[in-house]
Amino acid sequence: MRAPGNLTVVGLGPGDPQWLTPAASAALVAAQDLVGYHAYLDRVPAMSGQQRHGFDNRSESDRARLALDLASQGRRVAVVSGGDPGVFAMAAAVFEAVDAGPLAWRALDIRVEPGVTAMLAAAARVGAPLGNDFCAISLSDNLKPRAVVEQRLRAALAGDFVIALYNPASLARPGQLGAALRIAAEVRGPETPVIFAHAVGRPDERVAVECLAKAQSMAADMATLVVIGASATRSIDRGSDAIPFVYTPRSIRARC
Amino acid sequence: MRAPGNLTVVGLGPGDPQWLTPAASAALVAAQDLVGYHAYLDRVPAMSGQQRHGFDNRSESDRARLALDLASQGRRVAVVSGGDPGVFAMAAAVFEAVDAGPLAWRALDIRVEPGVTAMLAAAARVGAPLGNDFCAISLSDNLKPRAVVEQRLRAALAGDFVIALYNPASLARPGQLGAALRIAAEVRGPETPVIFAHAVGRPDERVAVECLAKAQSMAADMATLVVIGASATRSIDRGSDAIPFVYTPRSIRARC
Repeated sequence: MRAPGNLTVVGLGPGDPQWLTPAASAALVAAQDLVGYHAYLDRVPAMSGQQRHGFDNRSESDRARLALDLASQGRRVAVVSGGDPGVFAMAAAVFEAVDAGPLAWRALDIRVEPGVTAMLAAAARVGAPLGNDFCAISLSDNLKPRAVVEQRLRAALAGDFVIALYNPASLARPGQLGAALRIAAEVRGPETPVIFAHAVGRPDERVAVECLAKAQSMAADMATLVVIGASATRSIDRGSDAIPFVYTPRSIRARC
Repeated sequence: MRAPGNLTVVGLGPGDPQWLTPAASAALVAAQDLVGYHAYLDRVPAMSGQQRHGFDNRSESDRARLALDLASQGRRVAVVSGGDPGVFAMAAAVFEAVDAGPLAWRALDIRVEPGVTAMLAAAARVGAPLGNDFCAISLSDNLKPRAVVEQRLRAALAGDFVIALYNPASLARPGQLGAALRIAAEVRGPETPVIFAHAVGRPDERVAVECLAKAQSMAADMATLVVIGASATRSIDRGSDAIPFVYTPRSIRARC
């Protein structure tokens, strides 16, 4: 009888191999097939005998179906995802495909290996901006209407959450981040710290902190994670050369 | 001249050593002093020559000040934190202490090593419930008034975020999670999936999925992470023995 296949959605973390968990490494080594966006596959060391199925970055559903199909043929499959696969990444695409696919896919051994998601790495670089209640919003409007993005942003502002923005900009929608920052500036003070963290953990990492009043002039792309502070978020100046520490106090009463 | 000290706030992840990043491991090995809640220190293998400073779980500010004091004396210090240190954990306590402490502390080499936070591990165990916009709220009212918790919960519901609840219950406030679930049930449908993930990655791990209508009867403690689905969050039934897959679609338009 053929051995049953399996599928693991693996989070590579933000880019630095030192942030790849041992569990994720083991899942990559155990796989017979690696399925993923080619830029993520390029991060995985080559192993003899392992099949690679590279895709462009607009084919998440195709990747998911191929991986499920391979697993249902008895293969050990790893779907490779950046960051944490459950946060605006491949895990949801896989379970959408399971839900819409043949009933037999529901019986497959499907697992998710968590990873360090971009907002945690970005936060770590400047201090503890996510130190109190926070939310994560993807600004990509490929997948949801702009009105939904705006409604969620306004709700997050009303709740005084720290706001992490994923996929803040692309060539197709250069104005979206600016619009989000203008909405934030209607509610939060001009001194509110905003963090721009580009490619954290990769060779082209750039991290900057700017106040909300000046944040709209900052550049961002799809590899940038933006964090907008809550009303209690504070900067600690460290002198001219160093970027400030940024943190959000644990206690609401600690607000000055 | 004395070598300058440093301080790294290290995230151990949710408990399974296979989720400890190589960077976090290296920071633990490099430290001369480990400072932390004793239950977290117990997870770190003993190393000869390393000093351990164990604390109870209500002394975060004391831990932070001791660690900063040691670093300012030239020691290499690791503050040990569960999960990701920036999420309801020790990193904010350290930067609060820096902000309130002597100016010399601002010049210290202070870093944060990110980790897999509990909601990512809990989500991974059931599928991809955090697959669209989400928020994280700590229900602990030691640090903020209940009215703030309730206001944030209502804002998160208004924005249709998936909601991860940290610190959902303790002996001192057994009713707080029930109150949160009742508020959620005013807005979200009775079939909304709710995930109860206790001690994920540790020997006493227990994970359950219940619909919101029945969730109030579920037990939770401080080691439980609770995730309340958004309106689009779906369960995929896998038969009587297995817990269902739970995911939130990437696309808003995919909602049935």
